[in-house]
Amino acid sequence: MTIRVTVWNENVHEQEEPAVAERYPNGIHGTIADHLEAAGYDVYTATLDDPDHGLDDETLADTDVLVWWSHCANDSVRDIVANRVVDRVHEGMGFIPLHSGKNSKPFKRLMGTTCNIKYRHGGERERVWVVDPGHPIADGLDEQFVIPATETYGEPYDVPEPDRTVFVSWFEGGEVFRSGLCYRRGRGRIFAFRPGHEEYPIFHQAAVQRVIENAVEWASPTEGASIGWGETDPLESTGE
Amino acid sequence: MTIRVTVWNENVHEQEEPAVAERYPNGIHGTIADHLEAAGYDVYTATLDDPDHGLDDETLADTDVLVWWSHCANDSVRDIVANRVVDRVHEGMGFIPLHSGKNSKPFKRLMGTTCNIKYRHGGERERVWVVDPGHPIADGLDEQFVIPATETYGEPYDVPEPDRTVFVSWFEGGEVFRSGLCYRRGRGRIFAFRPGHEEYPIFHQAAVQRVIENAVEWASPTEGASIGWGETDPLESTGE
Amino acid sequence: MTIRVTVWNENVHEQEEPAVAERYPNGIHGTIADHLEAAGYDVYTATLDDPDHGLDDETLADTDVLVWWSHCANDSVRDIVANRVVDRVHEGMGFIPLHSGKNSKPFKRLMGTTCNIKYRHGGERERVWVVDPGHPIADGLDEQFVIPATETYGEPYDVPEPDRTVFVSWFEGGEVFRSGLCYRRGRGRIFAFRPGHEEYPIFHQAAVQRVIENAVEWASPTEGASIGWGETDPLESTGE
Amino acid sequence: MTIRVTVWNENVHEQEEPAVAERYPNGIHGTIADHLEAAGYDVYTATLDDPDHGLDDETLADTDVLVWWSHCANDSVRDIVANRVVDRVHEGMGFIPLHSGKNSKPFKRLMGTTCNIKYRHGGERERVWVVDPGHPIADGLDEQFVIPATETYGEPYDVPEPDRTVFVSWFEGGEVFRSGLCYRRGRGRIFAFRPGHEEYPIFHQAAVQRVIENAVEWASPTEGASIGWGETDPLESTGE
Repeated sequence: MTIRVTVWNENVHEQEEPAVAERYPNGIHGTIADHLEAAGYDVYTATLDDPDHGLDDETLADTDVLVWWSHCANDSVRDIVANRVVDRVHEGMGFIPLHSGKNSKPFKRLMGTTCNIKYRHGGERERVWVVDPGHPIADGLDEQFVIPATETYGEPYDVPEPDRTVFVSWFEGGEVFRSGLCYRRGRGRIFAFRPGHEEYPIFHQAAVQRVIENAVEWASPTEGASIGWGETDPLESTGE
Repeated sequence: MTIRVTVWNENVHEQEEPAVAERYPNGIHGTIADHLEAAGYDVYTATLDDPDHGLDDETLADTDVLVWWSHCANDSVRDIVANRVVDRVHEGMGFIPLHSGKNSKPFKRLMGTTCNIKYRHGGERERVWVVDPGHPIADGLDEQFVIPATETYGEPYDVPEPDRTVFVSWFEGGEVFRSGLCYRRGRGRIFAFRPGHEEYPIFHQAAVQRVIENAVEWASPTEGASIGWGETDPLESTGE
Repeated sequence: MTIRVTVWNENVHEQEEPAVAERYPNGIHGTIADHLEAAGYDVYTATLDDPDHGLDDETLADTDVLVWWSHCANDSVRDIVANRVVDRVHEGMGFIPLHSGKNSKPFKRLMGTTCNIKYRHGGERERVWVVDPGHPIADGLDEQFVIPATETYGEPYDVPEPDRTVFVSWFEGGEVFRSGLCYRRGRGRIFAFRPGHEEYPIFHQAAVQRVIENAVEWASPTEGASIGWGETDPLESTGE
Repeated sequence: MTIRVTVWNENVHEQEEPAVAERYPNGIHGTIADHLEAAGYDVYTATLDDPDHGLDDETLADTDVLVWWSHCANDSVRDIVANRVVDRVHEGMGFIPLHSGKNSKPFKRLMGTTCNIKYRHGGERERVWVVDPGHPIADGLDEQFVIPATETYGEPYDVPEPDRTVFVSWFEGGEVFRSGLCYRRGRGRIFAFRPGHEEYPIFHQAAVQRVIENAVEWASPTEGASIGWGETDPLESTGE
């Protein structure tokens, strides 16, 4: 079965800043979708301006993994849509927030924390180190890869202790950051990936594309066991 | 420094059901508070009917650990109060939801999952097993304790993988349940404890009282490190 | 690529106890191997009496996942072979100790704990509950399955806090046990599965076979990232 | 009750290298012990050259927390003593391996992994960042502290996924390292702390002393529950 991916992007910087539009002529979502399509996935894109932000019930029901980029418009996402995303993650949909998608309503509701960080717009060099070389999200990577210039993030990153830490970043200005974190909520797998600031051509880098592709593969739903919640009869004879 | 505990109770069954009122003449909160006071803590109680549910900013600022019992009125807790509790947990306040307090707004928002379970009103026997005998919440306990009659809970329990599992319960009717789970969100420690159905005198049991006392001790805030979030200057010289 | 599975069995009870030999005419390893072969895996078997216990370097190098049954002969496994297994797990080989394989040298060395438990030979009924229904090792299962008669295990089970708990068992005599636990050590995935006492036809049960098959799939090695340990040159200019 | 700390040091560099002897006139163990004594702990020291390495049964039985520094003589520690330490950790003794104590026999046996890393003797600057500001081992620290010159360690660090990551280090030459990791094995708490290379006066730094003091406090044994392992009678009536 081909994995069905929806790439969601707020798509605001691309409309307001010519440099971003030039860097990503079809939007950040378009660049990510092109790569995932070439890799053989069944890809759909959606943006903030679409009706229901492009994330109605039918679309989400048909989505195995939701890749999410957002930044300045995090607060513009309607609560009803954010909760719909959260509900689908609980049912098993994979969720991959990129960069400041960590501040999105769905991610913050799934984490239960503030997701606060330090940051700096300095165009510094980042080295993304693999700290869990046996993890499938690291498949095919070297021990580290370089992002030549980016916005810096710094610890502490206010998220729950992750199930696994896959990447930790080094920054020129002296900071470190846990850049690739795995969680599960309900049946859904979540991978929060730090890189992807819009002012730099980060989603054109092969290593970044490989991580996103690996994460899509890792986060896609598995069958699991059947669930029966609610009131239930005893299985064994009881004292009654 | 004496630990300041607030015991919160929706206090609805006590007003509507004579048997519960007889079992807990001062409310479930009163029984828990009496024990914690005798154990040397500085204890305050609050209920749903109090202005602001008794959980205004000043009260929460003065609370080290919030013990929470709720059941039928979970939806009646105002969002603004639930979010205030969540914010204080992030700052370091301990939070101990008891029994169906697992369905409370603060706990569900801190977990990011549905917290669904199976259940049955059968008055069955429960055996609460210590699975992490080295944990301070198990201090002074035997390897298991019995709750003679209770509402049954059953797995799967839809919560994130816990930081530590302290208790697992056995039920007469054939179910098991992870009855004591530890989490951290921000600086705040959370211990979700299953026992405590209002139809049985569970909070009068010594082992249950001991667990709550141990959990208060474990969940009380520690100093930690200073935090500086937001925009930040580089610490090292950068290429700029 | 077909996953290459080695099923290892001490194969002692089968030679010493006619009832076990009748239950498992080709040994416990034979029964497990037959099922895995029918499921499409490339399966090899090895036993204690084979030279090097059948686990020489070449065999382990050609093994993706090692399924391990042992009980009365745990101490007869040579240290050099146990360490060879541990080394291969670090390199990525999956390892699935069954039943009292929890007391095997490789498992205890990978855990770093005593792996102590309670036990009882009572032929009691066991209910194996799925507590993590989204986990791939639970694929295709109902919410619980019954083992009609078995040796009982009881908590506390002295193992490190698992990465994930997939199964928790209920026993007729009042015990609970964490029956399916996931770990990673180095690149290798480990799944410790409780059922499988030799006095009962447990490996003929479809649910048990399904769990082993799912676990083989889950534990098989992934590519991961390249690793460079040891002395290393600086990547950035330093003060020297 | 005053916490009883044993500070163990191989004490080899101090005897062989005049610069180290000058830096630590009473040995690394002496410097650490002096600080812990001043902080109010009951401190004892032991070294490789002592009979039984100074770690006989009586000494370990009287030790609440064992602080351990080792490097070039890791292989000279006798197996019987290493296993004695491991056994005491299982019983509840805290264990704090410093720097290349990560390669000590007790730590590797408790982890079940190779504990491999990258390293470089470059005298580079290290920034130790607090990534878990709510953890008691971070009590009283700023958000980061600087070690002006040190041996560099680099990821990947081959240890099990930690229970909690308290510190992550940044190095001048481009590496990152998880510098403060928490584990539990049996009843014993383990904190692996990276800093402490013998060529620099690191144990004279106030922040490093504070971390060790906090870790001793955190790792000291708690009472816990009683344990009964081995054969056991049923608690409930069974079908027999």
